[in-house]
Parts: sequence; structure tokens; C-alpha cells
Amino acid sequence: MSNYISSDKKLGILGGGQLGKMLIQAASKWDITICVLDPNPECSCAPYAHEFTVGKFSDYEAVLNFGRTVDVITIEIENVNTDALRKLQEEGKIVHPSPEVIDTIKDKGRQKTFYRDNELSTSDFKILNAKDDVLSKINSGDITLPFVQKLCREGYDGRGVVVIKSEGDLENLLEGETIIEPLVDIDKEISVILSRNESGEINVFPPVEMEFNPEANLVEMLLAPARIDENFASKAMDLGKQVIQSLNLVGVMAVEMFLTKKGEILINETAPRPHNSGHQTIEANESSQYEQHLRAILIFPLGSVDQKSPAIMINVLGSKGFEGKVDYKEVNEVLKMKGSHLHLYGKKETRPFRKMGHITICGNDIDDLIEKGNHLKKVFRVEAK
Amino acid sequence: MSNYISSDKKLGILGGGQLGKMLIQAASKWDITICVLDPNPECSCAPYAHEFTVGKFSDYEAVLNFGRTVDVITIEIENVNTDALRKLQEEGKIVHPSPEVIDTIKDKGRQKTFYRDNELSTSDFKILNAKDDVLSKINSGDITLPFVQKLCREGYDGRGVVVIKSEGDLENLLEGETIIEPLVDIDKEISVILSRNESGEINVFPPVEMEFNPEANLVEMLLAPARIDENFASKAMDLGKQVIQSLNLVGVMAVEMFLTKKGEILINETAPRPHNSGHQTIEANESSQYEQHLRAILIFPLGSVDQKSPAIMINVLGSKGFEGKVDYKEVNEVLKMKGSHLHLYGKKETRPFRKMGHITICGNDIDDLIEKGNHLKKVFRVEAK
Repeated sequence: MSNYISSDKKLGILGGGQLGKMLIQAASKWDITICVLDPNPECSCAPYAHEFTVGKFSDYEAVLNFGRTVDVITIEIENVNTDALRKLQEEGKIVHPSPEVIDTIKDKGRQKTFYRDNELSTSDFKILNAKDDVLSKINSGDITLPFVQKLCREGYDGRGVVVIKSEGDLENLLEGETIIEPLVDIDKEISVILSRNESGEINVFPPVEMEFNPEANLVEMLLAPARIDENFASKAMDLGKQVIQSLNLVGVMAVEMFLTKKGEILINETAPRPHNSGHQTIEANESSQYEQHLRAILIFPLGSVDQKSPAIMINVLGSKGFEGKVDYKEVNEVLKMKGSHLHLYGKKETRPFRKMGHITICGNDIDDLIEKGNHLKKVFRVEAK
Repeated sequence: MSNYISSDKKLGILGGGQLGKMLIQAASKWDITICVLDPNPECSCAPYAHEFTVGKFSDYEAVLNFGRTVDVITIEIENVNTDALRKLQEEGKIVHPSPEVIDTIKDKGRQKTFYRDNELSTSDFKILNAKDDVLSKINSGDITLPFVQKLCREGYDGRGVVVIKSEGDLENLLEGETIIEPLVDIDKEISVILSRNESGEINVFPPVEMEFNPEANLVEMLLAPARIDENFASKAMDLGKQVIQSLNLVGVMAVEMFLTKKGEILINETAPRPHNSGHQTIEANESSQYEQHLRAILIFPLGSVDQKSPAIMINVLGSKGFEGKVDYKEVNEVLKMKGSHLHLYGKKETRPFRKMGHITICGNDIDDLIEKGNHLKKVFRVEAK
């Protein structure tokens, strides 16, 4: 299907954020025509898409009308109107990932149930409809502290998750349909990114290790590859493969996992698309997660996922206390550092902890890279004008 | 001057070809606003520039009006209206490379005279105004066969150059102002790419080796690094530095050189911009020639030019016998090859020997890379629908 290259065929992306922008950057090398739907005319993709449509990807009519103008449809965010995608499939459009996969993953309750039904290792959980149900289960002893509560829908970038350690935390309980999981004794959090094409061929990137910012619940630093033994890495990659096969997903996906202190590997959550934990593949691996996604959904051969050198990735987050028109401070500290690669997403407005960009640093010594990353986290800041 | 990042400031590029497109790809990572002027609304840059203006970069008014809408102006082709650039400089715009440098380089007679005046090693030459002058100098014995004749202006991508080996070749002599050089006994042709910023800091990429297609006079395969001894490499890099310093050029430039069988290094010609002989730096070096150009002209620190692995580059040229709407054949042969990186420029129409894209192959063993490159040159073809 090389006719997606330099042809009139179009790839449509639902969502115009940074993941979409990096898909466009990958596609631009191969002259693939990209169309994007996003409600924000100032989103990251707007200046780079061949065709940009302002509209809500959660709206049935908007997605249907947009989808009818393209040949293949993919997503860069889960929160899209899957009824419209089903209708587009009926009309003969190619949709990857499928609406069924998106529906399974975007609802955390359905997602966890899917793992349990398919015997895929994950932590215990309960699905509850309201805050009152959580409180009564605590009273009856069915739920014991400490636990984690997550909104089933619409949670994103650390929002919609609370950790309840003591009775004093109960005032933070979330309203609505949520899942409750026991607080797992985590040794490390890792992520495995995989790609799979229509013929079932699968490629697995080496697992990466994530350190989280406890305040923002966002990745603070990502280490690639993860500092785990080979046996563990290979088990994690196998678990990832089982997930992508069970879902029958075509495209790229991320499987985030907990390594517990007891030595278990538990699936935390997954994303049916390129993911924050794969940004470093742009520079550190032979072909990036974005390129793999295009290869998988446009029926090209999958590329090599070999890692060329160790790398770390840090998210560039809006600094606390600043809101408004973005103003980057000490950019030159990043640009002058050997091995560093700065990616800014082109968001015009900053707010505390908003993902404004990321930095990948490649090199030979992981401890040196961590030190460099910590230095940049201190000096490079996202303030407002 | 980090205010070119995520700001209202604009970088304007004269010319919308592949070099411009690769500059946009580099700039997109840093959220720099790019505006492009090109007469062809279907040029490589058109879909990716933030603002695209249809107009001739050789036209005074077109360049002046375009330049007034941006803050910094650069080029991706030499054949631009430098009078308009001088006017824009007077009006306070930043122009890199300077109009003087462009004027010196775009006329091959002035270029060669510049080397001679600055004692920069190059082959002998004569500047002549017309074909008849060449013929009479041959008759008088002032010019002896074999020699090379080059148009002083407008030569591009192998056009405007003839080699006269015997009297029978004289019918190919070019009309107009030309330079005549003795045919040098070439051992290798190499290229050195350099960047220099306003404070005079210079970075030099390792020399690369070019094998030419004798029919098209275009680079057939580029080997990075060049297979020459360190002493030679270091001399070539020094010569490159002398050239960029003498020109007082800010930005990236390419200095193409002959290594003669006698062991001399002679400047062949230069380009005051990113160059075909630096495409492989995108994947093979820590920061690419395109990134270096942006760093140099926007007053960021220059990046590391270290080469990460050996690489070869082949140009993807329009196949002989095909003209019209482009149709790539056997794309998958490229995409499935480990280490290969395909770049297509998005030109809609092909013609014999037109530069349609390039392929970089990275790996550890240069002989293996040459073999892979030769394989792709055979199987991957650019035909017409």
C-alpha cells in the first residue's frame, strides 16, 4: 500500500496535540498527506497539517464529516466519538485503532475488566458508581485503606486520580464512576511500547522506566532502557505482546506496568496510540514510535526498534505560579548541552504542569544522563509573559 | 535570542524546495514560525510552512514585500534577488547569509576570483564572455584540452557544466559568460559542511566523500565519513574554515573539494546554505546541518556535529524515460531495510534525474552500507503514472 506516499490518499488524525504533531513530523519525511480535527485552532498540529479542521473529536457529526474527507483515520487521544468511527468503518473507511479497542481502553473500568477476562496480570479492582458507594464499602470493610481511586472516564495527564492513604484524605474522594485499586507496593514503573500491523506482525521497544512527579502525577524523568534485569524485561515485553494481541489492535500502543517489590509485573494502564513514554524513540531508536504507528496503520513493513544509545526524557511542564502567554527561560542551557534534543509543542498558553514540550538526552552513561536531566529540570523554565 | 522560540517573530526562507522543507522540519521541533516564498504553489515547503507566499525569489518587489513580513531572512537557493535583500538590511532586517556572500558565490567567476584573491587553494581558471572567446583561446593555445566549462550563473544540479576532452566535444561548448578550468586529475571529491554564528564560533562536520553519476553530474552516493586519512581530513576542515571566515558567512555552508592524485586539496565550489552533501547529518550526526543553520542564524549556541555512526546517502532521482505524476516503485524495499531512512520531498511531478528524495542508511560497516545503497538504487524507482 505504498500509494499513501505522494498520492491523493489522506490520513486523518482525531486530535491536534503534541502526539499528532510528532506523527506529522514522521509522516512529512514520506510525503503523506495529513488532515487533523481539533477544536482548538491554536493547537500543536494546526500549523503543520496539510488540512486542519476546527471541530470537536468527541462530536458525532464533526468526526463523521471529517472522516468522510480522508481514507485512513487514526487518533492521538482516546476521548473521541467512537459511534462516528463505527459508522465510518461501515462506509468503508479504514480506522486504526478500531472503535472497539478505543471503547475498551478509554473507560478504565472496562479496561481493567478486559485484563481480568483475558487473564492478563493486573492489580485487583472494584468498579463503583459514586462516591457514596466508596464510602459505604469502606464502612463495610470491603475496601481498606490505602487505595487509589481513578475516574473511569476523562482522566488525563494525571487528572482524575487520587491516592487515599488515611481517613483525612477521604475529603479528596472523586465523584462519579470510578475504579478502586489497592495501593501496590511499587518497586518501579515501566512502560512497553509495541506496534502491530494488520497481518499480526509485532515489534516491541525495549521497556523504559518512569519516575513520577508525585504532585502532578506526570512522568518526571524517563530512563531508556529501564534498569531491570533481562529476564524481567523479557517478561514485560511478553506481557505487552499478550495485551496487543488480545486487543487485536493495529497501530502503536503503550502498556504501563508496575514492578512490585514482591517481583510481580502488573499492568497499570494502556494507551491505544503513541505515548509520552515513547518520545525518546525519536532520537534514541532506529525508528520512532510515531514512524512505527504510520508503518502499522498504512500497511508498510514495521521498522527496527533497536535502541542506538541510552537516553533519558524529561517532560517540559508549565512552571508553578505562571499562567498565560508562554515564555521559555534559559533555552540555551538546553541547546548547548551535548546529546540533548529539545521538542516544544507550540502551545501558546502555559499553566502549571501543562505539558509544553520534552527533552531527550542521549549518551553512553545513564547516571551522567540523569544528572544532565536534573540540571535542565532546574534551570530551564516555562514562565508567562 | 531565545525569543524566536514560541514567539511572534518569524523566519523567512527564500525558496521552497527540499532544503527549505528540511529546515522547516528542524524548526518545527522548536516551534519557530517559518514563512516561505516560492513561485510554485506545489513546492516541497508549501504544505508545511506557517505562511506560504507564491512569488519569485528572483524578483525585487516579491522579495522586498515578503521580507518586510518577517524578522530574519535566509535562503535555500542562491539565485535570489540580492538588491532586495540589501534594501531589507537597510530597513533593519537580519539577513543570513549576507547579500554580499550570496553575490560572491552565485557567480562562479566571482567565486573563483574570491578564492584566488584570498589565497584559498583552487584550480586555475579563466573567465570568458562568450563561446567565440573560448574557441579563439583554444586556437591561440591559451586554453588546452581537456578542460571543464561552467556557466558563471544559473548552473544548478549538474546543469551548466560540460567537459571538453576532444575536438569532437567542442560542439557542446556553452554560450554566455563561463569559466574554463583544466581537467584536474581527481582522486576523490569530498565536501566539508560548516556552520558559523555572528560571534565567529565555527563548527565543522567531518568531511564526506561523493561519488558522482557521470551522466547526470549529480551525487550518486555519498559516504560519511570520507575514506581519507586523518591528516587529509584535518587539512580539508581547515581549508573549509578559512573559506567561511574569509567570506564572513553566518549560517551553514558547504565547501566541495577535489583531492587530486598529486595529493593537493582544491576547492571546487561552495554553497552558502545547507547542501545535498549534508542530508545524512539528519540521522548520522548529533545535530543536523539544518539545525546548525537555524542555530547559527538565530543566535543559538551551535550544536555538536559528532557523527554517531557511519552512513551513506543516495539521491532518489527521477528514473530515465518517465515524466509526469510521480509513482514510487518498491518503497517497501527501502522501508524494510534496517538502518535506512527514506526522505521524499513531496514533488508531484517527476522527470529524468530530478531530485525527488534521498535515502540515508546508517550502520557500522561502510562496505555493507555501500552494498545496501547499490541494492536500493537498483530496486527503488521513481516512475510516472
